[in-house]
Amino acid sequence: MTTLRITGGRVLLPDLTVERADVLVDREAGEILAVGDPEDLANGDEHLSAAGSLVIPGLVNAHGHAAMALLRGYADDKPLDAWLQEDIWPAEAELTPEDVRAGAELAIIEMIKSGTTAFADMYFEVGEIVAAVEASGMRARLGHGIVTVGKDEEAARADVEESIRVAREFDGSAEGRISTAVMPHSLTTMSEESLVRSVEGAREAGVPVHFHANETREEVEPIVEEHGVRPLKYADRLGLLEEGNFLAHGVHLDEREIGLLTEAGTGVIHCPASNMKLASGMAPVQRLLDAGVSVGLGTDGAASNNDLDLFDEMRDAAMLGKLAADSAAAVPAEAVVEMSTTGSAEAIGIGSGKIEAGANADLAVVDFEKPHLTPAHDPVSHLAYAVRGSDVRHTVCDGEVLMCDQEVLTLDEKEVRETAGRRATELVERA
Amino acid sequence: MTTLRITGGRVLLPDLTVERADVLVDREAGEILAVGDPEDLANGDEHLSAAGSLVIPGLVNAHGHAAMALLRGYADDKPLDAWLQEDIWPAEAELTPEDVRAGAELAIIEMIKSGTTAFADMYFEVGEIVAAVEASGMRARLGHGIVTVGKDEEAARADVEESIRVAREFDGSAEGRISTAVMPHSLTTMSEESLVRSVEGAREAGVPVHFHANETREEVEPIVEEHGVRPLKYADRLGLLEEGNFLAHGVHLDEREIGLLTEAGTGVIHCPASNMKLASGMAPVQRLLDAGVSVGLGTDGAASNNDLDLFDEMRDAAMLGKLAADSAAAVPAEAVVEMSTTGSAEAIGIGSGKIEAGANADLAVVDFEKPHLTPAHDPVSHLAYAVRGSDVRHTVCDGEVLMCDQEVLTLDEKEVRETAGRRATELVERA
Repeated sequence: MTTLRITGGRVLLPDLTVERADVLVDREAGEILAVGDPEDLANGDEHLSAAGSLVIPGLVNAHGHAAMALLRGYADDKPLDAWLQEDIWPAEAELTPEDVRAGAELAIIEMIKSGTTAFADMYFEVGEIVAAVEASGMRARLGHGIVTVGKDEEAARADVEESIRVAREFDGSAEGRISTAVMPHSLTTMSEESLVRSVEGAREAGVPVHFHANETREEVEPIVEEHGVRPLKYADRLGLLEEGNFLAHGVHLDEREIGLLTEAGTGVIHCPASNMKLASGMAPVQRLLDAGVSVGLGTDGAASNNDLDLFDEMRDAAMLGKLAADSAAAVPAEAVVEMSTTGSAEAIGIGSGKIEAGANADLAVVDFEKPHLTPAHDPVSHLAYAVRGSDVRHTVCDGEVLMCDQEVLTLDEKEVRETAGRRATELVERA
Repeated sequence: MTTLRITGGRVLLPDLTVERADVLVDREAGEILAVGDPEDLANGDEHLSAAGSLVIPGLVNAHGHAAMALLRGYADDKPLDAWLQEDIWPAEAELTPEDVRAGAELAIIEMIKSGTTAFADMYFEVGEIVAAVEASGMRARLGHGIVTVGKDEEAARADVEESIRVAREFDGSAEGRISTAVMPHSLTTMSEESLVRSVEGAREAGVPVHFHANETREEVEPIVEEHGVRPLKYADRLGLLEEGNFLAHGVHLDEREIGLLTEAGTGVIHCPASNMKLASGMAPVQRLLDAGVSVGLGTDGAASNNDLDLFDEMRDAAMLGKLAADSAAAVPAEAVVEMSTTGSAEAIGIGSGKIEAGANADLAVVDFEKPHLTPAHDPVSHLAYAVRGSDVRHTVCDGEVLMCDQEVLTLDEKEVRETAGRRATELVERA
């Protein structure tokens, strides 16, 4: 066993108190061995300084489309439907496997640099994303996004089977850092038959189902018209609401739908920046929390955000949650810090998000010696409202140091940036 | 004349196009001499590299309370009224002049580091803020905030006269970088007589009036009850709506009030983060823009934000503006970039916010060679949605370099941070 010791800092504990402590990590097992008084811990084989800093659980970005980083800033200020049909889908139709790899690596570097250690991703050419995750040292739950609308029966079926195949093939890869899910895109972009087969395939493969739901008002009405029930009642009928499954957005939900989520143990991934940027609406986050729904946090793709910084997302979640509830006391700092750590980790089903013995050794070290983090009356408030991704000094995942002193060690940042920039330019010229 | 030349970058021009150009600055006059093809410009006495970067107008933070940086994260997740009465006012009652100086310097360093070159500030102990601005090299419009509610007639009168005295004494100081305003706090925290005297005093002193208005619903109703008209009609009656005056917030406005603002030429300073964090509501920003109202952008105090990064505020303004208008096309990237530059500069009455010959030499150089700014399909989109304050390399105000390669040259960052941290701790122990 070789150990890594994170020394000299303060640590955010699972109860959100902050303590002067060191963290000892088993690098091979990728697990936290102990958290405690520097005097009481065994000396580590390697050290990482956290002086003047706060050690926090690695953040978990529970919903996104990493490769869309190539389309960051390509088409802004348009509503979801027009944006997808006029800009995003035509550009995505031109994406090559090499583009997906380049976009995923760019997104991964941005996430590592802003303290994110795990993410859930719905896209295509998933083998390329697997390769990027493997090389980067991050943790991820990946899946092939299925869309059957506009496809003939055979093509629709093939797309579902591809998602099931991908889920089977890659689950447990990258030494267990990669898990998978079957990922039907949404209730309105999938035939009923395809949704049912997705659920069945996921059960057979022993993986969860991840899908978009109730993102816009325009998505709710057609389901009510066609099926006579609200979208999540329809989803429940098809077996989509089960423990371990997780859906993105959940903006337009009524009380009965929230009740279904609570009963089922299906997680909701809140994407506040995307919901604001596309004017989709305000998710009832405080009501979800009050109902005991497991709520995680996601950036969505970079084209609708336009960054992948979960600190930004925490701030957005706290602020939007207050507006949605019409109360400044709603969705407080503690809630969004939990959402981006334990909330996301539980929703996507990984053993991360906590700094305690036995948890995955996924963590980030945040430099608090900054003017915008002075004074430090309340470190949890700072994490929610004032810390930026650029304040992260080191990022550790599965016991490995992915970034040290703001230098990413597993991928070549300059090369990834240049390749992605070139490929993005060529892509939009083709589209 | 000594000149400074900003070389090798691209420049954001007043029409929001981006051009490969150098910028030549007259350091003594503090003015931009020329913007153009590097081949055509005279060589500068000093050079500042903008390679790989975008040169933008220095951002203008048009409403805030700088010294409240000492209360950053001190009391979060509470509504405006309780937050002020239970936490903020008791703490502010304990502030010494030295505390105000320390808080203002902390805020100024944060602003310089995030590319802000000018700010408007309403507070007390204004002499201390003047000293901080003078030392820092920033530009500011400063004023003493008057509150008369709860004061006897004599104390109320004295407070108004203090604001007028401060406005007279400091207008034009710091070699003209400081201008002033008379600053009655708001329509509900001031007696009618005091508001009238504030307007009169400002006219006599030849300075504008700055005040808070229509921030919360709770502020609107008492005025309607007492005066029979909406707040801005009442303000107009008292002479508060005039060209050159500017008000903060303007969240709850009806169409007639928007019409009054357009007619009067009174600016509105939008503070989206503060409005969200205090659950005050969503300002009708697109409607204000459509009506031709001059809209600026402000962070408000750090206690209700909790940072002073105007890039964050641009992003918040674009996103909240879309929700308020229920349209993803509302408040686009271009609008928020204008708001934080020309919009704010015009609203608070300074000749900054544009990179063109004759304008104040107030600018910032933003490093675009970052993963989260890759690819660069649209630099204006990046300024609104993806750039963070930490991407700013250099900040120049009035022809002087205030920050070079992220090092603040005019104040000692470490000392300011330590002093502010210590004073903030002592302050909350007293409060």
